[in-house]
Amino acid sequence: MGNADYVFPSSGDCGHRVAIPPSQPFYKSLKKSLKETFFPDDPVRQFKNQPPSRKFILGLQYFLPILEWAPRYTFQYFKADLIAGITITSLAIPQGISYAKLANLPPILGLYSSFVPPLVYAMMGSSRDLAVGTVAVASLLTASMLGKEVNANEHPTLYLHLAFTATFFAGVLQATLGILRLGFIVDFLSHATIVGFMAGAATVVCLQQLKGILGLEHFTHATDVVSVMRSVFTQTHQWRWESAVLGCCFLFFLMLTRYFSKRRPRFFWISALAPLTSVILGSLLVYFTHAENHGVQVIGHLKKGLNPPSLTHLTFGSQYLTVVMKTGIITGVIALAEGIAVGRSFAMFKNYHIDGNKEMIAFGMMNIAGSCTSCYLTTGPFSRSAVNFNAGCKTAVSNIVMATAVMITLLFLTPLFHYTPLVVLSSIIISAMLGLIDYEAAVHLWQVDKFDFIVCIGAYIGVVFGSVEIGLVIAVSLSILRVLLFVARPRTSALGNIPNSMTYRSFVQYPVANNIPGIFILRVDAPIYFANANYLRERWIGEEEEKLKSTGETSLQYIILDMGCVASIDTSGISMLEEVKKNIDRRGLKLALVNPGSEVMKKLDKSKFLEDIGQEWVYLTVAEAVGACNFMLHTCKSAPAREIV
Amino acid sequence: MGNADYVFPSSGDCGHRVAIPPSQPFYKSLKKSLKETFFPDDPVRQFKNQPPSRKFILGLQYFLPILEWAPRYTFQYFKADLIAGITITSLAIPQGISYAKLANLPPILGLYSSFVPPLVYAMMGSSRDLAVGTVAVASLLTASMLGKEVNANEHPTLYLHLAFTATFFAGVLQATLGILRLGFIVDFLSHATIVGFMAGAATVVCLQQLKGILGLEHFTHATDVVSVMRSVFTQTHQWRWESAVLGCCFLFFLMLTRYFSKRRPRFFWISALAPLTSVILGSLLVYFTHAENHGVQVIGHLKKGLNPPSLTHLTFGSQYLTVVMKTGIITGVIALAEGIAVGRSFAMFKNYHIDGNKEMIAFGMMNIAGSCTSCYLTTGPFSRSAVNFNAGCKTAVSNIVMATAVMITLLFLTPLFHYTPLVVLSSIIISAMLGLIDYEAAVHLWQVDKFDFIVCIGAYIGVVFGSVEIGLVIAVSLSILRVLLFVARPRTSALGNIPNSMTYRSFVQYPVANNIPGIFILRVDAPIYFANANYLRERWIGEEEEKLKSTGETSLQYIILDMGCVASIDTSGISMLEEVKKNIDRRGLKLALVNPGSEVMKKLDKSKFLEDIGQEWVYLTVAEAVGACNFMLHTCKSAPAREIV
Repeated sequence: MGNADYVFPSSGDCGHRVAIPPSQPFYKSLKKSLKETFFPDDPVRQFKNQPPSRKFILGLQYFLPILEWAPRYTFQYFKADLIAGITITSLAIPQGISYAKLANLPPILGLYSSFVPPLVYAMMGSSRDLAVGTVAVASLLTASMLGKEVNANEHPTLYLHLAFTATFFAGVLQATLGILRLGFIVDFLSHATIVGFMAGAATVVCLQQLKGILGLEHFTHATDVVSVMRSVFTQTHQWRWESAVLGCCFLFFLMLTRYFSKRRPRFFWISALAPLTSVILGSLLVYFTHAENHGVQVIGHLKKGLNPPSLTHLTFGSQYLTVVMKTGIITGVIALAEGIAVGRSFAMFKNYHIDGNKEMIAFGMMNIAGSCTSCYLTTGPFSRSAVNFNAGCKTAVSNIVMATAVMITLLFLTPLFHYTPLVVLSSIIISAMLGLIDYEAAVHLWQVDKFDFIVCIGAYIGVVFGSVEIGLVIAVSLSILRVLLFVARPRTSALGNIPNSMTYRSFVQYPVANNIPGIFILRVDAPIYFANANYLRERWIGEEEEKLKSTGETSLQYIILDMGCVASIDTSGISMLEEVKKNIDRRGLKLALVNPGSEVMKKLDKSKFLEDIGQEWVYLTVAEAVGACNFMLHTCKSAPAREIV
Repeated sequence: MGNADYVFPSSGDCGHRVAIPPSQPFYKSLKKSLKETFFPDDPVRQFKNQPPSRKFILGLQYFLPILEWAPRYTFQYFKADLIAGITITSLAIPQGISYAKLANLPPILGLYSSFVPPLVYAMMGSSRDLAVGTVAVASLLTASMLGKEVNANEHPTLYLHLAFTATFFAGVLQATLGILRLGFIVDFLSHATIVGFMAGAATVVCLQQLKGILGLEHFTHATDVVSVMRSVFTQTHQWRWESAVLGCCFLFFLMLTRYFSKRRPRFFWISALAPLTSVILGSLLVYFTHAENHGVQVIGHLKKGLNPPSLTHLTFGSQYLTVVMKTGIITGVIALAEGIAVGRSFAMFKNYHIDGNKEMIAFGMMNIAGSCTSCYLTTGPFSRSAVNFNAGCKTAVSNIVMATAVMITLLFLTPLFHYTPLVVLSSIIISAMLGLIDYEAAVHLWQVDKFDFIVCIGAYIGVVFGSVEIGLVIAVSLSILRVLLFVARPRTSALGNIPNSMTYRSFVQYPVANNIPGIFILRVDAPIYFANANYLRERWIGEEEEKLKSTGETSLQYIILDMGCVASIDTSGISMLEEVKKNIDRRGLKLALVNPGSEVMKKLDKSKFLEDIGQEWVYLTVAEAVGACNFMLHTCKSAPAREIV
């Protein structure tokens, strides 16, 4: 140890005063607080004191995270990513086709959208588990918003071009949010929100698979449980038992392998390979039994060839510009919320962190690139990412594998998927979803924090009975309400002396604390803001009265306000303090402040409150303030101890 | 003093542990937190231990504040209220007429609305300065919303009945909000918001008076400065110099009396009587010179007779129910916001407090009563209340005086106002408004708190360039953003020992503080919530690195977390602490907690974090924790001081 031996001081009074910090020029404090708000992670920290060539490499790594992790990439990782990539490819193809149909776009667009965007994301994204692709909600919204202006069946080319343009606007919006450093919005998705949101989304996705399992041809476009149940039970005559039997068998097979792999972690690969095995088995089964003629739906014919360019199809000058921009903004925001929530969920499982700003830029760039290569809006869909996670992916290479596999499929293999039964894909999705309904986490939330449990249940119910966005809005609103309530209704406590110490603590938490005659010590545990100024005044008067009643005291002389935990104060708070001071003066009492922080000290000084109260009445510790008050109480016995009015 | 003489303890170690509070049943803690949120003022406190008769009287006083202050009412007060009441009557009549025209309703409704509602408010309201009447914004909204469904010129009776029904719904909504104890919404209108809002509203009202001053017949219905300026300067050929000269003379007279009264407070009555004098002088002038034929507009003919009942005209079954309810809800909320903001503003000037819940109930009851007596939506208009305040009103009796005066006017005096020139009323309003643009308060805000200044300017610009509601929304959003940012970006600080004391304070605020070798002490000044968990982790790592760099230390062994100011924690925060603990363990360091509050202690216990860290590592004070760590550091020299990885 470099320093001299440390000696404990024995005196209690140190003679130090609470100093008023020197005032900073406005631009300096503005710069500092902007930096704290938008650049808390200090992204340029590592650039300091580096040669220009190193700076260039670091900059590239910042925008292309692949350059950072690629050198550390191992063959072990590749094996895992290969399996995950192939597994999600087997999902990407039918999902892409069905969502494209939902958006009233040509089915092949779903495959195109699983080729270019995943490649862009693999280079720019910071999540290791996100599998890129189209999503149901955004597809539905595209259809309903653009469909209001242009009929997709009557003007298919115009409709297609508008969809590309909307995708372009969504991408620009997403990238802009990221560049403006608004990634901290992601922090407002709390642990509890994510538990509820994931369970809700898993439930909804499972319900959607009833279409595939029961072999239904018509199904509701809504995602809430009421619509789905109505859709299922109004067409009981359409249920196909062949499909249901096949689905249940595969589901049983998948669950069994999962259970086995969980019990014997060495055999994890059994569970990881099961979905692909199911696809192959299912396709062979249909091919040899011709089950497609007996109620088992298959993927069917797909066109060959890679994405054609679509840059020239972006139309900015048409009369539809307003509706296209609106569609782009709304679907862009919803896709962003889903993608980031999903990425964050899996990051939480694996205990790593996602940079919200980088994610937004990555989503934005991938949609801008997509809009130029015949893709429509993509993000990180929950179901595909869950399968990716379950299949044991390690890095974004699984996206590259998927893109390559989709490319090969587009070029050569489309005929092979002709016989893949949709019901097998439904089984794969359901088995992945069931593992994500984390009821144990919900029980834990209930035990530890009731409000977090309410947030979680709010998100779940919102997603299941409303929609994904309603669930998110409910959970985020409740979370923000909690923050506002914390500030609007802060905790105040009367302090007493812990016996045989110079420590002062709340009477409620430490019933052994001693009351000090003639002195009332109050502490507030929150910033004093407009939202609580009124409340605090009422509260303080109430506490004071209570204390007087309980101790039967009539000779109160000093009120000590412990400001140690008041991190900030605004002008409403200062006005309130001024009023309290006047009220205390009127009753012939004295007010002392203890340990205000530097920001509070600065504002009290500027508003002349310090002058008003007298700087000698500001103490460094409660013990010092009590000591000084006691000294005055005992030496100036002649001073009249006035009654409370 | 009842207690034994107080003796200062000399020992620093008191041997007390931070106790885990006993867990409460769920319903008890729920009840307590609901009470804190909705009944912080404890309205039933004074009812406790009272005989039933006294309880009845207290209850009546709670709902009818007039019973509380009426017994203390003096003749001095009455003189002031009489002058104020007569002054606002002279405003109420032309204002009522012009706003009723704005709402496409018969002009006489404006007078009716200044008779019944003020009487109800005088009994139930808690503001002393609010003058009740109709407002421009709500009148405009009524016309535009109802006008979409029913043409007022083609179906005047139906339109009238719908307006009464909308008023009824607005009243029910307002009273309901009050009964549900949502009055704390008012707390979100901060000091800064009100300074900006008042200045903005005063500017807008002054601009509106250009119509009267310039004698214009057509004028925009919008309130923003751009529309008003366009309206004024596109009809320069319509300007009437006679009107303008008269207006400027009266304005000069009013300003002069105000200035004189301000310099010589004894002659306050000169300024208070000036508006009424102006009205009388103006009317006489017009009567004798017949100026109404030379470009000076006058009020004109008014019908005699009191309010006819309209209870039977409320229509709940018609096809227009939806639009009527919508109109009622929207105008009700806007009127409430304006009325409460205005009441709160003047309460701030006079240093008394308004109970938001009581105000809402009073507004609601006055509109319900109004809807049954041929009145439309009323609230506390800014201009009329400002004149009331300036005329020196003392209590709500000025409203009773106004109502009586309006009643007498309705019964007998309508012909007397025939010749009152509108331009005089404009001058009265302008002179009242100019005193309310409080630029000194804005300068004070800038000096003390830059963010409050931004809120203030936001409210001003919103009101002047947009509308009253836009201004309010901007200011409230900014204020809430500030609270959220406070929680999302809390202050953390590294602590050091103040020389010759056992006190530990931030290095930044106290540069004299000493670093303690081998120990790093951190404090956070905010609750640990989802919104800041990520940020805090990054911040702590950053601070640690900085400290290591600045001191050149390589032998860090203990990290002490001062939790004294962490008033609350949620599950996201606990997860973050667990991660931090794991990270610290991995590096061979030890984590100690200091002084967690009872709520935090309870949650740490329930989540098993306390078990994980070990309860012996939770200390009551920083000094104790440092003492214990130092003891271990110096006695266990054999333990390897590991390098930071």
